[in-house]
Amino acid sequence: MKLSDNTLERICKVFGYLNFLSSKGVGFVSSLELAKGIGATAYNVRKDFSLLGVTGYTRRGYPAEVLKQQLGQRLNLTKRRKACIVGLGRLGSALLDYEKFAEDGFEIVAGFDSSINKIERLRTNIELYSIDQLTKVVKERSIDLGIIAVPAKAVQEVADKLVAAGIKGILNFSPVKILVAKNIVHLDMDFTSALRFVAAKFSLQK
Amino acid sequence: MKLSDNTLERICKVFGYLNFLSSKGVGFVSSLELAKGIGATAYNVRKDFSLLGVTGYTRRGYPAEVLKQQLGQRLNLTKRRKACIVGLGRLGSALLDYEKFAEDGFEIVAGFDSSINKIERLRTNIELYSIDQLTKVVKERSIDLGIIAVPAKAVQEVADKLVAAGIKGILNFSPVKILVAKNIVHLDMDFTSALRFVAAKFSLQK
Repeated sequence: MKLSDNTLERICKVFGYLNFLSSKGVGFVSSLELAKGIGATAYNVRKDFSLLGVTGYTRRGYPAEVLKQQLGQRLNLTKRRKACIVGLGRLGSALLDYEKFAEDGFEIVAGFDSSINKIERLRTNIELYSIDQLTKVVKERSIDLGIIAVPAKAVQEVADKLVAAGIKGILNFSPVKILVAKNIVHLDMDFTSALRFVAAKFSLQK
Repeated sequence: MKLSDNTLERICKVFGYLNFLSSKGVGFVSSLELAKGIGATAYNVRKDFSLLGVTGYTRRGYPAEVLKQQLGQRLNLTKRRKACIVGLGRLGSALLDYEKFAEDGFEIVAGFDSSINKIERLRTNIELYSIDQLTKVVKERSIDLGIIAVPAKAVQEVADKLVAAGIKGILNFSPVKILVAKNIVHLDMDFTSALRFVAAKFSLQK
């Protein structure tokens, strides 16, 4: 199935929003409510659903749990995935503790840092390793996803290492873009861009 | 000017990408290159530019610096903005040090936490305060933007406090959605959704 990044991004947000609705005990939801919840248009959400062959719309809306299952199956989101975090400074160690990853089927199985000192100091249930062991651990534990939180100057080297070790997807939290082969999925988290969006939006409201 | 969130989001990313190109010394850029750089289609980028009345396209592409200036003016991105961070745990203190905010015109002028212990321990040039002083400091220093990094259970209370203090925009890093009045711009950073996107995309590639 070939979906655009926009569709994929919206569906991933919808999936998260369905988790949220679930926690609130909401049973049915309309495409308009979903669209509002994720900041998209109802037209786009309905188009995405039709691309994915989502069924089950009733007069009360979509049954939230069924919809979540359908989306999860279409995008393989029900499969549990192993991830690792590279770089255990403040941001990386905050990510070690980010509980929602686990709730959502992502298991952080390893953390890596170049500083042995840092590894010894950190209190966590997750196994921590020297970065020298990255290739070995990623292969042995069949880790699919790499989360990068190293300083800017080390980012590209870490990305290359992860790719060489067989990682399939990268989420990059460093403020520098990474370059990887086309078949390696990656996403750069850009905090500044997010703050810029908020500032631009309120300044245009006036 | 009324722009959709999608357009605004793309333009904010384009602006960031132009910063990146600038740092690489790139003089001219096509809409296709920009689109690739931000993960959108060239069609959408050109449509956004036409909505904003962007001019100056040459045979070699857009002159990057001129384009950046035009976009910055249209979206008021050239104005320097004051921001504060609420919650100085690992994530919040990592954000205190996130250098790209400042490079991009966002000045973090204050950090708040409920733990005096944490405030006294943290080493930073940014002024730190007890959360009890939030209202006073936000008003006195005319802070526009609030960045939330507190634990889930405190998020809504902090959001309400920021709004009452006169903040205009909120970037929420907690794993819980916030509810604020319609005129308050806010964006929830959702790390899990981002990881989900990466996982779904590579699993569909097969």
